[in-house]
Amino acid sequence: MYSYQKLFTFTKNIFESIGCPKEDADLATEVLLSADLRGIDSHGVARLIGYVRLWESNRINATPSIKTVHETPSTAVIDGDSGLGLVVAPKAMDLAIQKAQVAGTGWVAVKNSNHFGIAGYHAMKALPHDMIGIAMTNASPLVAPTNSLERLLGTNPIAVAIPAQEQPAFVADFATTTAANGKLEILQRKNQEAPTGWIQDAQGNMSTNPNELKAGGALVPLGGDTGSHKGYCLGATVDIFSAVLSGANYGPWVPPFVSFLPVAPNLVGEGIGHFFGAIRIDAFRPASEFKTHMDNWITTFRNSKSKSSDQPVLIPGDPERLTSAKRLQEGIPLLDPVIKDLQSLAQRFSLSF
Amino acid sequence: MYSYQKLFTFTKNIFESIGCPKEDADLATEVLLSADLRGIDSHGVARLIGYVRLWESNRINATPSIKTVHETPSTAVIDGDSGLGLVVAPKAMDLAIQKAQVAGTGWVAVKNSNHFGIAGYHAMKALPHDMIGIAMTNASPLVAPTNSLERLLGTNPIAVAIPAQEQPAFVADFATTTAANGKLEILQRKNQEAPTGWIQDAQGNMSTNPNELKAGGALVPLGGDTGSHKGYCLGATVDIFSAVLSGANYGPWVPPFVSFLPVAPNLVGEGIGHFFGAIRIDAFRPASEFKTHMDNWITTFRNSKSKSSDQPVLIPGDPERLTSAKRLQEGIPLLDPVIKDLQSLAQRFSLSF
Repeated sequence: MYSYQKLFTFTKNIFESIGCPKEDADLATEVLLSADLRGIDSHGVARLIGYVRLWESNRINATPSIKTVHETPSTAVIDGDSGLGLVVAPKAMDLAIQKAQVAGTGWVAVKNSNHFGIAGYHAMKALPHDMIGIAMTNASPLVAPTNSLERLLGTNPIAVAIPAQEQPAFVADFATTTAANGKLEILQRKNQEAPTGWIQDAQGNMSTNPNELKAGGALVPLGGDTGSHKGYCLGATVDIFSAVLSGANYGPWVPPFVSFLPVAPNLVGEGIGHFFGAIRIDAFRPASEFKTHMDNWITTFRNSKSKSSDQPVLIPGDPERLTSAKRLQEGIPLLDPVIKDLQSLAQRFSLSF
Repeated sequence: MYSYQKLFTFTKNIFESIGCPKEDADLATEVLLSADLRGIDSHGVARLIGYVRLWESNRINATPSIKTVHETPSTAVIDGDSGLGLVVAPKAMDLAIQKAQVAGTGWVAVKNSNHFGIAGYHAMKALPHDMIGIAMTNASPLVAPTNSLERLLGTNPIAVAIPAQEQPAFVADFATTTAANGKLEILQRKNQEAPTGWIQDAQGNMSTNPNELKAGGALVPLGGDTGSHKGYCLGATVDIFSAVLSGANYGPWVPPFVSFLPVAPNLVGEGIGHFFGAIRIDAFRPASEFKTHMDNWITTFRNSKSKSSDQPVLIPGDPERLTSAKRLQEGIPLLDPVIKDLQSLAQRFSLSF
């Protein structure tokens, strides 16, 4: 178990070591470690070495000049200048919130960015302002559209955070595939089979072998074998909002997160793309009224009759909130390969881990 | 086969017979029949008798006074005054488009409405304005959240329409359940089994018997047996955007479409709720630039290698567009029970069918 504070200091030092200004290193660390706290281990400190490698291959700019390149009262486009998504994204979300203060809602598309950690972190920034937050991003192509053999979409997550009064906020944060790539990586490591509907092989047949992904297979959109066309619609919408609106790369042109894979030739845009929204509750009805109804919504759903007492009905965000409270207190567990990666980073930058 | 024009005149006469002003009858007919044209037979003229029955039981107001009750530069709340959703919804979408002209985006939540036909119709209204259109609605509770035995959500559809240049628009329109209720009704009529993941029985076990729905079972959120929590997140988001933002009924309180089911006691809002969005493309980048990239997006996906030549890779909206062109020319097929319903309506209002 590693304490949050210890991991925070270490991660922040790494970001400073690659040249991030102090404030940006702080912000990037907070965003990255929010994944570890919330139990989305695949997106947290396990990826720190990935960001460093991207920086080493000159795909990440540690001192970006982040600019608003286009705007209207309720919209903006931000050029992330190849900065860390972990830094560009929260600044874009701040702008969405500012726009919403004035215009009722704010919508910010981002180009020329990199992976931004978990979508939920950014959406949740809206909550203290009595706003609904929305965050989405495209990602490295791993997913085949329905009927296709080609990987044309990322796992393209969507997060929606909605404030309540007494109850904890509703926080949905999910990949638009049947299973996130991180879950598949765990099965690959453990040499276990995947459920049907997660992956297809190179011929497009459903497979339970998680290694098919490395042999020309692909992840399957949400809906799996019973209706992946809906997940395809969702993933496609995220791709278009994040990249075609902003001027980032879309579909098969999205630059891969891993530095050993080359960037596609003839790029159609700049970097990867995100899309953020902030909706001021009292642009629709008084916030207290809304939040009281949200309490009623939440308790009605949570208290509904469940299949069994060990399978309660959850509200989106419940598991992550509980994990977060636990890990802040008890520490964050790290897998051996992750610990080794962090040790190698420590050595590389003459730090201790 | 029935010609579109013939069905249009008949349907319009029915709406006028229940007291709709001429213009509203025209509009309601266009919205309703767009479902028949696009091949969503469950939501078209087959439901005409359902609307009439709701009017007979005083749940629909044929001469509503539709009012904007709250607004900011980019948002509004509309009170539908118990009007036909088929009339209230397009007017709300028009307001979203007006707001977007000025503020870049427009977002309209609607309360005190009724079923609005297919979501896709409303989203597509944005297309001629070089805008992205979004439409969603809550609906009668038929869906159990993950782990729940209770029906707390409707099939809560989402539609997103995105313009392109030379290519036809991208139009996604889907229920947030594994299967729409209409598909289940067809299986019930034909006495056929449903695929696993569509429905659960009264004990919460996956079932292939479509009649379980009438015996205490429920529809399953998108994701089915491999991950219904994501579909639950989506359906819940639609419910909250449509009803908690607007002041309509949400969750188990949403009034049923069928007039023989009573409205729940102690309502938490007014009528059912919708949510509409219009996003002006050039609030982000020049529309022609965006639409040229959409053409590239669409052709890249459509031309990707498919599993087999009889299973091509489709773009959302392809099947509905082809059906629409065909049915405009060849006519619209109607099932016998639907023909009988229309004949009984003809008799009831002294019209001919």
